Amino acid sequence: MKKIYVVGIGPGAYEQMTIRAAKALESCEVIIGYTVYVDLVREHFAGKEFLTTPMKQEVERCRMAFETASAGKTTAMICSGDAGVYGMSGLMLEIGEEYPEVEVECVPGVTAAIGGASVLGAPLIHDFAVISLSDLLTPWEKIEKRLLAAAGADFVICLYNPSSKKRYDYLQKACDLILKYQPESLVCATVSNIGREGEQKQIYTLGELRNAKVDMFTTVFIGNSQTKEINGAMVTPRGYRI
Amino acid sequence: MKKIYVVGIGPGAYEQMTIRAAKALESCEVIIGYTVYVDLVREHFAGKEFLTTPMKQEVERCRMAFETASAGKTTAMICSGDAGVYGMSGLMLEIGEEYPEVEVECVPGVTAAIGGASVLGAPLIHDFAVISLSDLLTPWEKIEKRLLAAAGADFVICLYNPSSKKRYDYLQKACDLILKYQPESLVCATVSNIGREGEQKQIYTLGELRNAKVDMFTTVFIGNSQTKEINGAMVTPRGYRI
Repeated sequence: MKKIYVVGIGPGAYEQMTIRAAKALESCEVIIGYTVYVDLVREHFAGKEFLTTPMKQEVERCRMAFETASAGKTTAMICSGDAGVYGMSGLMLEIGEEYPEVEVECVPGVTAAIGGASVLGAPLIHDFAVISLSDLLTPWEKIEKRLLAAAGADFVICLYNPSSKKRYDYLQKACDLILKYQPESLVCATVSNIGREGEQKQIYTLGELRNAKVDMFTTVFIGNSQTKEINGAMVTPRGYRI
Repeated sequence: MKKIYVVGIGPGAYEQMTIRAAKALESCEVIIGYTVYVDLVREHFAGKEFLTTPMKQEVERCRMAFETASAGKTTAMICSGDAGVYGMSGLMLEIGEEYPEVEVECVPGVTAAIGGASVLGAPLIHDFAVISLSDLLTPWEKIEKRLLAAAGADFVICLYNPSSKKRYDYLQKACDLILKYQPESLVCATVSNIGREGEQKQIYTLGELRNAKVDMFTTVFIGNSQTKEINGAMVTPRGYRI
């Protein structure tokens, strides 16, 4: 059967992907993805055909993958992190309805929440919520409702897409909502360029985070009431008696 | 400096870990973990010293790792999935305060939410909450509050530890709480033995899930109002116009 792998390559370059992901890419003739991610893996898969599309052409990129696979070339669609968390695997399965001759296999990867948490220490060790602040495809009212619900129930919160040029004040807005339930002193942190050159982490209080500078390569972590800093690491205890 | 790696090996056996995780384990003299997980990796790391402790001896296992590293042997503490999600990395960093001579490095892995989602299709493509139903270390009232908050804000929900012998009716209790906000027809699913022999998936409605048989090797996925089934896959659309 004709085949497409939808592969999460993890947060950074080659070593951050699973052995299964590397084997899947090795088995393909064509690797397709957003330009930045293709450049992260290109040197490790010599001899493959690489196809790229720019940002915001997600639907076109998916169709390109199915057309390639349908023409008989085993194909991989790659995503940063995990393809199933704000990635392409949903859209691929939706568009895949039009290509019943192509089998889709999703290969999981380390998403930014998991990768960033390991850089910081152990912020997600207990119940957590993952929320994207991008209102490109989601109404802000829904994002607001989720931020309030998560803060009110004392979830650790991981924020994706905390900022962009147009949405420069969204992290501030999110912090203001969380401050309705959590104290200014709450332990928070950011990680940028997880697993890549220029990786940076910073611990904040929730009050400080409100004014922090973040960009689209930053993942934000907001602790729960138990979260603490231990020697520069952000740690949410699970409750074991030491 | 003396060193401990806290390594998430992913949901299954060898291929599900990252290349970075495999290299970290390769660089160690001693690999420590819960018996079941050590047995999953043992054959791939010949010549290492393997130490195991049974379940519920988490604190002892962490101390054993620090004592080993402190004695000069580079050591890995392995966890199933990711060590930062209901895993050992928090406890390791807490106990690490007593061993300032040992550096702790957390190596991320594919947690059951991410691995299970890739088996099902793409249920977590949008905002989601991860909740453990185990009340061993968390009061049930807090779990209940989080279930209600997550369902009320239309998060996709991933449940860890949905059942045990003592907690045989906890999934039913959780479904009843979620049913206060979501319809009986909501698309849900379970995955057992993710990435291992005997892997099984099953799609349910929320009404059916209430009576499903699950065990401690099952991860449960509860959709949001947009989640649908596409050819046996559980998919939460992100909102792209196809």
